[in-house]
Amino acid sequence: MTVALRGVIPPLVTPLTDEGELDSASLERLVGHLADAGVDGLFVGGSSGEVALQTDDVRVRTLQVAVAAAGGLPVLAGAIDTGTARVVEHARRAQDAGAAGVVVTPPFYVAPHPDEIVAHYRAVAAAVDIPVIAYDIPSATHVPLPLPALQALAEEGTIVALKDSSGDLGRFRVAVERVAHTGIGLLTGSEVFADLALQAGATGMVPGLGNVDPDGYVRIQRAVEAGDHAAAAAEQLRLIELFQIVDVADRTRIGFTAGALGAFKAALHLRGVIASPRTFAPFLPLDDAEVARIRGLLVEAGLPVIR
Amino acid sequence: MTVALRGVIPPLVTPLTDEGELDSASLERLVGHLADAGVDGLFVGGSSGEVALQTDDVRVRTLQVAVAAAGGLPVLAGAIDTGTARVVEHARRAQDAGAAGVVVTPPFYVAPHPDEIVAHYRAVAAAVDIPVIAYDIPSATHVPLPLPALQALAEEGTIVALKDSSGDLGRFRVAVERVAHTGIGLLTGSEVFADLALQAGATGMVPGLGNVDPDGYVRIQRAVEAGDHAAAAAEQLRLIELFQIVDVADRTRIGFTAGALGAFKAALHLRGVIASPRTFAPFLPLDDAEVARIRGLLVEAGLPVIR
Amino acid sequence: MTVALRGVIPPLVTPLTDEGELDSASLERLVGHLADAGVDGLFVGGSSGEVALQTDDVRVRTLQVAVAAAGGLPVLAGAIDTGTARVVEHARRAQDAGAAGVVVTPPFYVAPHPDEIVAHYRAVAAAVDIPVIAYDIPSATHVPLPLPALQALAEEGTIVALKDSSGDLGRFRVAVERVAHTGIGLLTGSEVFADLALQAGATGMVPGLGNVDPDGYVRIQRAVEAGDHAAAAAEQLRLIELFQIVDVADRTRIGFTAGALGAFKAALHLRGVIASPRTFAPFLPLDDAEVARIRGLLVEAGLPVIR
Amino acid sequence: MTVALRGVIPPLVTPLTDEGELDSASLERLVGHLADAGVDGLFVGGSSGEVALQTDDVRVRTLQVAVAAAGGLPVLAGAIDTGTARVVEHARRAQDAGAAGVVVTPPFYVAPHPDEIVAHYRAVAAAVDIPVIAYDIPSATHVPLPLPALQALAEEGTIVALKDSSGDLGRFRVAVERVAHTGIGLLTGSEVFADLALQAGATGMVPGLGNVDPDGYVRIQRAVEAGDHAAAAAEQLRLIELFQIVDVADRTRIGFTAGALGAFKAALHLRGVIASPRTFAPFLPLDDAEVARIRGLLVEAGLPVIR
Repeated sequence: MTVALRGVIPPLVTPLTDEGELDSASLERLVGHLADAGVDGLFVGGSSGEVALQTDDVRVRTLQVAVAAAGGLPVLAGAIDTGTARVVEHARRAQDAGAAGVVVTPPFYVAPHPDEIVAHYRAVAAAVDIPVIAYDIPSATHVPLPLPALQALAEEGTIVALKDSSGDLGRFRVAVERVAHTGIGLLTGSEVFADLALQAGATGMVPGLGNVDPDGYVRIQRAVEAGDHAAAAAEQLRLIELFQIVDVADRTRIGFTAGALGAFKAALHLRGVIASPRTFAPFLPLDDAEVARIRGLLVEAGLPVIR
Repeated sequence: MTVALRGVIPPLVTPLTDEGELDSASLERLVGHLADAGVDGLFVGGSSGEVALQTDDVRVRTLQVAVAAAGGLPVLAGAIDTGTARVVEHARRAQDAGAAGVVVTPPFYVAPHPDEIVAHYRAVAAAVDIPVIAYDIPSATHVPLPLPALQALAEEGTIVALKDSSGDLGRFRVAVERVAHTGIGLLTGSEVFADLALQAGATGMVPGLGNVDPDGYVRIQRAVEAGDHAAAAAEQLRLIELFQIVDVADRTRIGFTAGALGAFKAALHLRGVIASPRTFAPFLPLDDAEVARIRGLLVEAGLPVIR
Repeated sequence: MTVALRGVIPPLVTPLTDEGELDSASLERLVGHLADAGVDGLFVGGSSGEVALQTDDVRVRTLQVAVAAAGGLPVLAGAIDTGTARVVEHARRAQDAGAAGVVVTPPFYVAPHPDEIVAHYRAVAAAVDIPVIAYDIPSATHVPLPLPALQALAEEGTIVALKDSSGDLGRFRVAVERVAHTGIGLLTGSEVFADLALQAGATGMVPGLGNVDPDGYVRIQRAVEAGDHAAAAAEQLRLIELFQIVDVADRTRIGFTAGALGAFKAALHLRGVIASPRTFAPFLPLDDAEVARIRGLLVEAGLPVIR
Repeated sequence: MTVALRGVIPPLVTPLTDEGELDSASLERLVGHLADAGVDGLFVGGSSGEVALQTDDVRVRTLQVAVAAAGGLPVLAGAIDTGTARVVEHARRAQDAGAAGVVVTPPFYVAPHPDEIVAHYRAVAAAVDIPVIAYDIPSATHVPLPLPALQALAEEGTIVALKDSSGDLGRFRVAVERVAHTGIGLLTGSEVFADLALQAGATGMVPGLGNVDPDGYVRIQRAVEAGDHAAAAAEQLRLIELFQIVDVADRTRIGFTAGALGAFKAALHLRGVIASPRTFAPFLPLDDAEVARIRGLLVEAGLPVIR
């Protein structure tokens, strides 16, 4: 299990057919694409997977396909919902579907106290036999995971890892100092400072852009582990350029989330990994000019495209 | 149906037993308590109902109990979730359980474009045979319902009403001017300016405090309809004083949502309507001193208490 | 003095010449335009006056011109700055220039505690002989004036009025209930619910749109005072339509503040009151199409234009 | 000049006497304390200097004392105010007082468009003969400096450096990639990831905690320049522990800014550098227990205290 809490663990996009159905074949190809790059685990049903747009049925089937295709790679599953009882149900279904652990945000839609956030994690952890990873993503939940709550959960063993998608490396670094002695996994969600987060004590990374270029992030992980900061930085700089794909979409026409996740899917479609760039309802699609610009960025980053 | 889009439509709290199970008997008493006061409809599964903390099963059973107890009063049901496909499932279950309409927020957790919000409502409306009410509650969703989207949805008939819990009467009033010609219902969620919202063109109200004192809000509605603004204001001022119950809880100890909804439940418990003040996990309870202060405010407002 | 804390007190724009210098002649015409409409006071150096963009010298000269032209109408002056000592200096200069009172926000740029906000107002009030009005405009300062601080300041006599530009009528109404017994003036900054705010206990109003159509707001004030809510509402609805001028500017080209204040100036220019629509640096101007649209809205509102 | 745009440039606190007057002797000692540690420049009149609370006169005198005491070290001066004309005045006064450059935020209190922010910087740069440094501190201004604006200003030579106090290392790193070719200085304001920011391309740092422990930040700068990342990290970790002093104050009693800046002053007082820990009005003081806790953290960090 602990292998899943170190190294590169991409948060998989969820491929759809052009008709909007789960595309299992594309998902299997995506798993293979990532496994071939040498990633250390997979994260299914996270923000990059458009989890918020999926029915429970699609969530479970996605996880089942991924687990079957993973060939022993540990698969973490998002158990992401607004409240405790709902998250417990997701977590149990994930356990039944073979997840190696569940990734859980604080409650949202509501405004919880830090002690209520702690109670939330305790209830979820008590309800399943697989480990719980805390997921801090205030841009989505608008409920940050406070540092004292994190520290309490880490010290008492309720959580086995933190996935930090706050974008706040200062706060992450302080968190590392507070909880490193507990031995929990410390995963950054950043696409643009993965190398530096590793130097600051992260044990691994969960970058959405890792769908598109898993090899790049694996190289960063290995370079830092080998102490070669310059090589890690060079790779990171190449990926920063590539990450411009998430800003290609015209935000006066489609939303922020659709633009970013649609770019990941468009890139994977251009690379031949998935059969359709389609996103979940109600997201609107990128247009042809935007896809062409993404294609250009892929080529500049040295990635082969087939379309 | 249209009767449900005018007048007083309280958003019911969801009573639990001391063990945390749905308390159907208390819920039936609550329905009776509201019906006796002459309300015009009921809204089950909204923010005041702690919908974000409930499993799908509890959501459905709550609605079934309320519909059975409502004796013909129309019951609106929240179909509140992060994404389109999830909301469609809730809406269909609500339709099957006898809801007169479904109350739907924009997608949240994600960051949608206004056109994606419009697509969301169209998909939900197309999936059910009961009408859709748009629910604007940015304090919970962090995704406001933009005025042009509202206007498009009202004009094309996708929605039959707006429930405005934004707290922004200026924006509501402008919305009224833009959409009043469509004839949609215009419901304010405000506890503290219901009388003024009615004067500004609201057709009704959905005040959480209406659980505790439905008679007061019915008196406001009738006074404004009779043109007696002074009587409406006097009643509103009494209710503003009573509304202090939501600020009684110590926010350094329990969260904002638990403090406010816990106060509604504590008040209904003190009034003898429900058997337990318990809130859903992971919310923490009010303490004895806080409950005593709520009791004092009820007495000052002229409401009988039995505990 | 108290005459200035009731009724219509427009927050004057600050006219510039085409070269960007203070245009005293236009300012005198603006004062006359407002006085002729029967306003009860003037507010110089507020947000509508672009105070944040003015040097101290321009602030003082603007005030001197307005006082000289006001013919006995009381002139309130903004003493708006980031910190206590700076505000004290503005307030003293305003007193010397003949201001009837100073309008003061909480400290901003910094993040003060409510008790520090109270200390701020006490220090300013102690430093001048003219009364202090508290100015709550969190959209500009990002520091709301907390209700307990307001209540303390009103009860101890540190402030003689509140100017509420929060847009939150619920909070304003609760504030009215808490402080009405102190007799302080309660001024709403809303352009779109002035009639309802008066019914809720406001003693007057400070609407930026009152620069353009002071007669309309005077009619609202008089209608509410006469108990004719229907007449007040009809006038308010006409002004809501006119208020669309602040949304005419393309926000992908010029900023929110420049668009709104530029619209007031463009309208006054079209009406022949001021000689140039120019705003302060670094604001960008409206374009011809936008000005034409503003012209159309003025005509629809029944206001004569000369350009 | 360029020497000031690399290396450690602490943002000086502004010492006051117990009576609240500028304490020139303490300021001179502070300059000596920093110079002795080998810093590369000084920044006077920034957020850490409580610039928002100072009169213009105090701003100028503080700068004059610092320049006189600096013994050739370049002194940057904040020219921080809400609008263009006001900032120009500050910048000219700073030039006259001997500043080597002025540090300028976007306009605030207002809501400017990115093109208006660009116009703001151009106007300031055109008005003085000393270079302009862009200061991005959205926690104070609530107006971020957009990346395209930064890029335009750097490429055209309007600004010679960026001081990034956004806390967002991802955005900073992308900014570095976009503007490094222009050769501008890239200064991080972070206390907790200075070492990583340097690796990411920062040319220097402006840490508030550098008042208290300038030697530590100088060691980080030199270690990174020597390629000794491990030594830099070890020093940074010690400073992260020390940085807890800014969280010592009880935020239910005094404000965020007073708590943080009061902690810097309390620490300098305990170390014997300044004669009084007093902050500017209207900030409230730390209490004895809080000061004792700061003392403990200083000792743990290995810093000598005399009180």
